[in-house]
Amino acid sequence: MMTDYIRALSIDGVIFGFHENELKVLLLRWKGTDEWSLPGGFIRMQESVDVAAQRVVQERTGLTQLYLRQFHVFGDVNRYDQVDVWRRAGLSFDERDMWPRAISIGYYALVEYSKVEPTPDHLTEACAWWSLDTLPNLLFDHNQIIEVALQSLRKELNEQPIGHLLPEAFSIPELQRLHETILGHALDARNFYKKTIASGDLERLPERRRGTPHKAPFLYRFRPLEPV
Amino acid sequence: MMTDYIRALSIDGVIFGFHENELKVLLLRWKGTDEWSLPGGFIRMQESVDVAAQRVVQERTGLTQLYLRQFHVFGDVNRYDQVDVWRRAGLSFDERDMWPRAISIGYYALVEYSKVEPTPDHLTEACAWWSLDTLPNLLFDHNQIIEVALQSLRKELNEQPIGHLLPEAFSIPELQRLHETILGHALDARNFYKKTIASGDLERLPERRRGTPHKAPFLYRFRPLEPV
Repeated sequence: MMTDYIRALSIDGVIFGFHENELKVLLLRWKGTDEWSLPGGFIRMQESVDVAAQRVVQERTGLTQLYLRQFHVFGDVNRYDQVDVWRRAGLSFDERDMWPRAISIGYYALVEYSKVEPTPDHLTEACAWWSLDTLPNLLFDHNQIIEVALQSLRKELNEQPIGHLLPEAFSIPELQRLHETILGHALDARNFYKKTIASGDLERLPERRRGTPHKAPFLYRFRPLEPV
Repeated sequence: MMTDYIRALSIDGVIFGFHENELKVLLLRWKGTDEWSLPGGFIRMQESVDVAAQRVVQERTGLTQLYLRQFHVFGDVNRYDQVDVWRRAGLSFDERDMWPRAISIGYYALVEYSKVEPTPDHLTEACAWWSLDTLPNLLFDHNQIIEVALQSLRKELNEQPIGHLLPEAFSIPELQRLHETILGHALDARNFYKKTIASGDLERLPERRRGTPHKAPFLYRFRPLEPV
């Protein structure tokens, strides 16, 4: 029931994955249309905002352990043209049904691509990964929300190494390729190695990565996360 | 009228000032009590969230040009004990009057201490600067909100020099003392100078600072801000 939710306030989730050296985002296709949007939802009356965001991302991915960050509130009065969005989304428009002005709290999640089971919600019929380089014109202001999420992720990356888009065990060159993809430019390998090790966030595993053309590199993993 | 506002959603403003080498925050004392809180307010139905935050800070400070940053949403279900807050704030408590659960969007502002005219709102009778080192036990969860604001400010400081707490013209040693106060530890003068100049955010003025025991240092100012 809508009345169980706080009106005028919603969550939008930017779920990032990394596959074949591309940064991807999980999108939903609205029933009977070719229109896509981010996953999202409302906040229950007796639900903390962080918990609502976890619920939204869990339902779309099947994952329970999440690396999730609140990054921005989108609170302009006219975020998008409601009538246009309703038409494109295939909803019969009746002014009485108009949603209240929605303020959206943006969260991004970093997930391991291969572990996700993309799952649509009750308004949508497909859930799929899209490359950030070839996004369609999304419903609502969701292209802008993704852009702001990416900027926030880049800032976070400058503060600490982030590997939650990789399998648990990874080599430093693999982590570097991830960072380069997110930042959109190459990094100096020696500096990257030094800075990453100096962060103290990684622990070296007993195994090495086999089957590379170079000397088999060590594998690392992140020290266990604090819960969100 | 409360009905003109979006219920369940509020703004809290952490207004930072810098005076006599101390970081200060602007607080309000509730009528007929010794209880203090942050300035805050609700968002009007037809008002962007950023504009509501500007309004709150402008009304308490008299300033119109603001350096204002959204930093976090405080959205836990039980942020504080409502009954206890009402009692301490001197409001007669009637369960029918209980505010809806409030989710608060935190903004911090960096202001020039000497230009502020502290002004209470309709629920309060004093507006004053408090040193961050000697804060009282504030109403609501406002001690925690200030703590998170300070952490966000420290992060921002690591990305770029911030001088909006100083008079328009300042020397690099003065800027360094501000950064040291916010960070809570000393910085190396040579590195600070290099990093600050390299940021490209400052422009050197024709004048120098007079009356210091050392060689008169150059004065700088920040290049004009983009509007919020």
